[in-house]
Amino acid sequence: MTKKYVFAFAEGDGKNKKLLGGKGANLCEMTQIGLNVPPGFVISTEACLDYLASPNKQLPEGLLDEVREHIRRVEEATGRGFGDPDNPLLVSVRSGSALSMPGMMDTILNLGLNSETLKGLIKQTNNERFAHDAYRRFIQLFGKVAIGIPDEYFNQTLEAIKIKSGALSDTDLTPADLQEISDLFLHVIEEQALRPFPEDVWEQLTMAIAAVFDSWMGKRAVDYRREFKITPEMANGTAANVVAMVFGNMGNDSGTGVGFTRDPATGENKMFGEYLVNAQGEDVVAGTRTPKPIQAMATEMPDLYHQLEDLRDKLEKHYREVQDFEFTIERGTLYCLQTRNGKMNATAMVRTSVEMVAEGLLSKEEALLRINPEHLEQLLYPGLDPNFKATPLAQGLPASPGAASGKCVFDADTAEARGKAGEKVILVREETKPEDIHGFFASQGILTSRGGKTSHAAVVARGMGKPCVAGAEGIRVDVLHRQAQVGDKIIHEGEVITIDGATGNVYLGEIPTVVPEWSKELDTLLGWADSVARLGVHANADTPEDAARARKYGAKGIGLCRTERMFNAPDRLPKVIDMILAETLEDREAALDVLLPMQRSDFIGIFKAMSPYPVTIRLLDPPIHEFLPFEHELTQQLRDLKELRQAVDTAGRMFDTIKLLDQDIHGEFSAGIEKLPVRLSALDPERLEQVIEKKTLMLQRARTLREINPMLGHRGVRLSVTYPEIYCMQIRAILEAAATCLTEGVEVHPEIMVPQVCSVSELEWVRRCVDEIQRDVQDAYGVWIDFKFGTMIEVVRACITANELASVAEFFSFGTNDLTQATFSFSREDAENKFLPDYQSNGLLTENPFESLDVKGVGGLMRIAVENGRKSRLDLKIGICGEHGGHPASIRFCHEVGLDYVSCSGPRVPIARLAAAHANLVRKQFDV
Amino acid sequence: MTKKYVFAFAEGDGKNKKLLGGKGANLCEMTQIGLNVPPGFVISTEACLDYLASPNKQLPEGLLDEVREHIRRVEEATGRGFGDPDNPLLVSVRSGSALSMPGMMDTILNLGLNSETLKGLIKQTNNERFAHDAYRRFIQLFGKVAIGIPDEYFNQTLEAIKIKSGALSDTDLTPADLQEISDLFLHVIEEQALRPFPEDVWEQLTMAIAAVFDSWMGKRAVDYRREFKITPEMANGTAANVVAMVFGNMGNDSGTGVGFTRDPATGENKMFGEYLVNAQGEDVVAGTRTPKPIQAMATEMPDLYHQLEDLRDKLEKHYREVQDFEFTIERGTLYCLQTRNGKMNATAMVRTSVEMVAEGLLSKEEALLRINPEHLEQLLYPGLDPNFKATPLAQGLPASPGAASGKCVFDADTAEARGKAGEKVILVREETKPEDIHGFFASQGILTSRGGKTSHAAVVARGMGKPCVAGAEGIRVDVLHRQAQVGDKIIHEGEVITIDGATGNVYLGEIPTVVPEWSKELDTLLGWADSVARLGVHANADTPEDAARARKYGAKGIGLCRTERMFNAPDRLPKVIDMILAETLEDREAALDVLLPMQRSDFIGIFKAMSPYPVTIRLLDPPIHEFLPFEHELTQQLRDLKELRQAVDTAGRMFDTIKLLDQDIHGEFSAGIEKLPVRLSALDPERLEQVIEKKTLMLQRARTLREINPMLGHRGVRLSVTYPEIYCMQIRAILEAAATCLTEGVEVHPEIMVPQVCSVSELEWVRRCVDEIQRDVQDAYGVWIDFKFGTMIEVVRACITANELASVAEFFSFGTNDLTQATFSFSREDAENKFLPDYQSNGLLTENPFESLDVKGVGGLMRIAVENGRKSRLDLKIGICGEHGGHPASIRFCHEVGLDYVSCSGPRVPIARLAAAHANLVRKQFDV
Repeated sequence: MTKKYVFAFAEGDGKNKKLLGGKGANLCEMTQIGLNVPPGFVISTEACLDYLASPNKQLPEGLLDEVREHIRRVEEATGRGFGDPDNPLLVSVRSGSALSMPGMMDTILNLGLNSETLKGLIKQTNNERFAHDAYRRFIQLFGKVAIGIPDEYFNQTLEAIKIKSGALSDTDLTPADLQEISDLFLHVIEEQALRPFPEDVWEQLTMAIAAVFDSWMGKRAVDYRREFKITPEMANGTAANVVAMVFGNMGNDSGTGVGFTRDPATGENKMFGEYLVNAQGEDVVAGTRTPKPIQAMATEMPDLYHQLEDLRDKLEKHYREVQDFEFTIERGTLYCLQTRNGKMNATAMVRTSVEMVAEGLLSKEEALLRINPEHLEQLLYPGLDPNFKATPLAQGLPASPGAASGKCVFDADTAEARGKAGEKVILVREETKPEDIHGFFASQGILTSRGGKTSHAAVVARGMGKPCVAGAEGIRVDVLHRQAQVGDKIIHEGEVITIDGATGNVYLGEIPTVVPEWSKELDTLLGWADSVARLGVHANADTPEDAARARKYGAKGIGLCRTERMFNAPDRLPKVIDMILAETLEDREAALDVLLPMQRSDFIGIFKAMSPYPVTIRLLDPPIHEFLPFEHELTQQLRDLKELRQAVDTAGRMFDTIKLLDQDIHGEFSAGIEKLPVRLSALDPERLEQVIEKKTLMLQRARTLREINPMLGHRGVRLSVTYPEIYCMQIRAILEAAATCLTEGVEVHPEIMVPQVCSVSELEWVRRCVDEIQRDVQDAYGVWIDFKFGTMIEVVRACITANELASVAEFFSFGTNDLTQATFSFSREDAENKFLPDYQSNGLLTENPFESLDVKGVGGLMRIAVENGRKSRLDLKIGICGEHGGHPASIRFCHEVGLDYVSCSGPRVPIARLAAAHANLVRKQFDV
Repeated sequence: MTKKYVFAFAEGDGKNKKLLGGKGANLCEMTQIGLNVPPGFVISTEACLDYLASPNKQLPEGLLDEVREHIRRVEEATGRGFGDPDNPLLVSVRSGSALSMPGMMDTILNLGLNSETLKGLIKQTNNERFAHDAYRRFIQLFGKVAIGIPDEYFNQTLEAIKIKSGALSDTDLTPADLQEISDLFLHVIEEQALRPFPEDVWEQLTMAIAAVFDSWMGKRAVDYRREFKITPEMANGTAANVVAMVFGNMGNDSGTGVGFTRDPATGENKMFGEYLVNAQGEDVVAGTRTPKPIQAMATEMPDLYHQLEDLRDKLEKHYREVQDFEFTIERGTLYCLQTRNGKMNATAMVRTSVEMVAEGLLSKEEALLRINPEHLEQLLYPGLDPNFKATPLAQGLPASPGAASGKCVFDADTAEARGKAGEKVILVREETKPEDIHGFFASQGILTSRGGKTSHAAVVARGMGKPCVAGAEGIRVDVLHRQAQVGDKIIHEGEVITIDGATGNVYLGEIPTVVPEWSKELDTLLGWADSVARLGVHANADTPEDAARARKYGAKGIGLCRTERMFNAPDRLPKVIDMILAETLEDREAALDVLLPMQRSDFIGIFKAMSPYPVTIRLLDPPIHEFLPFEHELTQQLRDLKELRQAVDTAGRMFDTIKLLDQDIHGEFSAGIEKLPVRLSALDPERLEQVIEKKTLMLQRARTLREINPMLGHRGVRLSVTYPEIYCMQIRAILEAAATCLTEGVEVHPEIMVPQVCSVSELEWVRRCVDEIQRDVQDAYGVWIDFKFGTMIEVVRACITANELASVAEFFSFGTNDLTQATFSFSREDAENKFLPDYQSNGLLTENPFESLDVKGVGGLMRIAVENGRKSRLDLKIGICGEHGGHPASIRFCHEVGLDYVSCSGPRVPIARLAAAHANLVRKQFDV
């Protein structure tokens, strides 16, 4: 028994892409669900492989007999005859493998034309020009694909005729021109191939099938498969689809068009598309005629419009997804040529999801799974109006999503002053530092000329949900002259710029932005997500405002409140510096006593904003030298101050090179160095001496505290081993804040979290302090505080000794950023600037492990920690608060490994909620 | 049946320290092996616990009956009567628990004396003064211990009598004085205790036993047990040992002494000790009489000397260890009072070990186990003559063992110049850098005023086996004026100093040192160690000289050859800098071409020195900026150079602030900045411009290459991802060196080791380069090279993905220094300077994990790596080359976890060989 190689569309298995190729299977499926597809058949990939494996590349035995039989059936279905000069059947022979390889393999259209059937086509279409054009196109395509004659032979001929006839473009050619071209093309073939163009349509068909099969091993296809790592298991061989040609240009009862089953921009349940009467697909592409909106068909061709509506219903019922389809009407008959899932923006995805559930087309789970969580970002941040065309002035890294316009300002103080005055500003800096934080609050967005996606500017902006473009290296910021320069273009302070944090583009002037709204459909969808997800979603937030916003986004707790961020406020930094400069325990405690009420009131604010959800507060993490200005800045300031002193000594004249803040001189601390000259006579020399003395002390201390590898240095819990009083102050502030809330009737559940822990002895050390303060505070306030004590898991040794840690810690929170650094021995900042790009371009790493959690290494350690931690404490609460906590693939891993919650920056909460639901719905996987 | 509480020395179980206490068990054991121990008995710890647990602290029922019976037996044995006024039996009542708690509990001597028996004692001893002295001492001790009267009451009385009698010291007191003192002491007791001193000897004994038991719960004892964490499982309650007093002062047939069974200084098999005729132990302590060497007894008391020799034989036969014993002779009878294992120096330990095996006393295994490997260090480095007394000038950290004297010099060039001229010098620096390496070679030792045990100076000195004192902060080094200052003492260049790397002491002037010799016994012992050990011992060595020395010490291969050390030679650094400054691949390759033959010849030297053992070569590890001078140095140099240029512009006069090397100006590179002024007129302005240009470039490059966390930065294999040509050069140098050796008939087994690997893709990346170069070299030389390709395991992720790495790596070598840093997130340099001391003083870490391998954390990762690595490659060779590789406790862990070898610095090879043997001999454990 010979193999069956050929399958009519009515009989092929629509799911068997491996055998029939993607296009062939799709045509079979459409046919079998009752859509009117032009008749045709698929020659299987098996036939292709047998052909390619045969010694002299012979089409397999029996194949042509099968083809003949199937052509017969197509003739029957169409009422036309293959090679019939009166009413010719034309077909296309299309390639198509199991995986889409767009444009990599060959296809031939209008096969079946020859000098005789051309006349029949003219008769059929009543369009001489079209028929001649189709013929000359067929000859060229066939000549190229099936015979192997390069395009340029044909193109030279075409150009010659165009010159001769004075045609500027192809459309200017007359039928006679086209006929002459066909004749010349036939001549070209005979000359180049040393054989005539095959008049016999069967010979045409046989050659075309072989040519399509051959294209599987063509250079383009082979290269493509190597590039995209397509193995024979994924796709092997191409099918050849033979389909009857249909023509939309056979009169006013014919036409062609494309449609979406719903509006891809809004998601509205209304067919969307356009069509042309008496036209072929090429006419739409050529743009010579303007298509009409599809709704016009309802009046112009009401019957066909009903057929179209019927098609749309069938498509959605069957595919249960919005479809993007192509159709042609030939003499009053609607043919569906192709359909695929429609690409939509996020708004449309959300709306259609919710509505298709209401319509009973989808289950809630299916509705959730069809949306890529990352795409929700579009719904959360303003974007540039896509209809507004503008040329970017410069480009940096897309460091925090969203778009904003504002007047550019070059320091945080100016940003604050102008911001408070109601102006919209963009803070433009070379790079930002913690003391710029008030400038962030006052600005619409941040632009820096240095630093990457993990620079201070980027991290803080993301946390605040403000747009940021970082490392726009083309911009030179000149703070002294209050201007920036791009090439030879100067931008003065106050000029309006627009930044797009989604692309990294920077524009001059204002560009309208589209502000998304939080639709009720999104709310519905995320509600479903919450009910489906096992993982909870918390947010990272450092202020009451951040906490309130995160709550609005649906956070069910604060997973990370960074107390050091609170220290950076401009009114607090001087107190922190007093603490750092303290030489005795008493001095340090005195400085801490000043900070205590500040932190306490912060915590009260956050507790109230989140009540009754838990709030996890991390004790001070960074090395304390981070709160001092850079050494080189201090050195410069001291040099300037000493010059100033000299000037004060000698005269009361203006000293125009001073770069000091007058606050520095008049009492307030600030690290900014750009200020207007001050009148020397106004200076108090004694005060100046004090400032010099203090700065000298700061410089000394900065030098003492300098570390070789600060990432692995004196920070986190290690600080508390040397200076226990710092953590004691923070613990007291937390517990007093909680007690205050409780006395006011506000429910609070604080969680005290210790960073950088590597051994249980460190936890015991801090816990002793917690116990003591707890007794104190509870006695003083007369309340019982329900809090948890736990640890970050961000040191490798913490993972390995998790069983011991869990004997003291009531919760774990993975800090996967530090953990990734330690696991790879990659310093994030150095890696991303220096060698990660080389790793990626050389194929040594497929993903940046700081963006997507490294499941094998870091994930392996997390598994160990989760298993061992729970062995020692059954009800151990485990979460993640690194940036990975907002990354869908990483959330999936957190779900698999058994975490209780993820915590991410507020604006990513909706994304995490959907991703958490996906993680629990294993039926479908997204690549994000 | 009542419990048995009392055991005669002849019946007690000598192994049951828990029941009888250490001293009691020892007395029983000595008695039972036939030594003449004074008769007596042990009252068990059970009796003590029952006594302490009784409601009113009653001695247990029946105890006193037992005691009476045992006293009767002692009376029988001694022929004296307890309380007999004519021939009184006196006893001591001594405490003694299962664990030694020296001085923490009470003991009473001469019990049984009263006004009547005193007369009997005078008769017995024929020494009125002794008897009265014994009596007054007994009254005081009993009064204090059993009645509770503080010492000062007695001491005041004693002082009063001394004043009255004009005695300057106790020994000036006459018998009459002593008698008066006794009388007054009895009065003190009656007055203070409101009861008379008990004349009844049975009452004395009962009270003494209770008092000894009570002392178990005395404050001193309780504090001691808490401090040393002695739990009831380890020792519970004290025994009371009642022993007949024997007296060495009963005439010229009596005496007392101490002895060692062999010479504790040399190990010679010859009794060693001293004795006094007609004396008590106190006399030896008081120092009023000079004891005679024990050999003198052979003529003075030949019979007793034979008894002593007999005692010595019995002791060694029984204890199979050199013994340190005490004896007393009472009227011609030798009593052994105590014995314990003798403390010996390393020389004696080694010699006795080897000889006791020859004598059949010990097995080889026992001989190996009795020596603490760390103590071998004494045999390998010169030490200060212990007889020479000197006061240190300053103290630093003992950074590399050994002692040395020499003229101090303040820079490496001077060290080299003077060293080559045959002078002995000590290199004294604030801190050292790689470019000082030639100074190390030329010096006897290194002294720095900054940096710790892991500073460059310490690490390099240890590797070379030269003494080093680091971080002697009291010393201020003033290179400019060629002097150092300690307090107000100035030391000029050329003055002789002595450093002791074992203590960290620094002395002015020369102190004689004792140079150990490599004894044949040590050779024998280490030979046994090798045959017993399963772990091999390799050495870390970077030069042919180091390799040869390591081989002499018994290394069976080089486990780590650091190629970067070769780059630091002063003639090579300029070429390396050319490589770093190269802006194009071509320039870099040109610079590498110059370095290739240098490295190749290094490798040839090392291969030849180690043939046929394997040599593991690590490809370049540190970040390349480490080869550039510090930024601040370059900035200073540039500032100076620019000043110089200005001076050159204006005049030919002397410019006396120049701190530049004339090499800098005349073409050679060096980073030193201290030099004599140069004559400006000799300067070539063009050359000066070139130097300025080059230094500017270096400064720019140093800034570009600067890293935030260099430990986790662009180094090791990460460099090779960016600059593959560097590793390619090194691989070629290795393989060409191997090929060269092979053509000369020298057997070589190179092992190419990749550092800082975190994923298998990195290994594949380097392996591709190895394969290509291997083909090239083998073809060119016509040889087949037997080499291995492997990886350091020093990144956490390497441990977690060891199974994948082992698919490419043929061997693993643990770099536990980096691995410890990553596991703890402790930067070693920052930790040891900033917070590790706090961790240790607060009890959060008992050991520095950089010195002793952290078995729980780092060890846990090592286990994972070993298990998973071997799963993927059965014959995977695994070693360790971090500093832990020379640390005995860490070696034990390496053995347990299944490593094949350890590699350590050359001078620690003997220690490691012995420790490796210990690791395989599980019978005994050392705390090292």
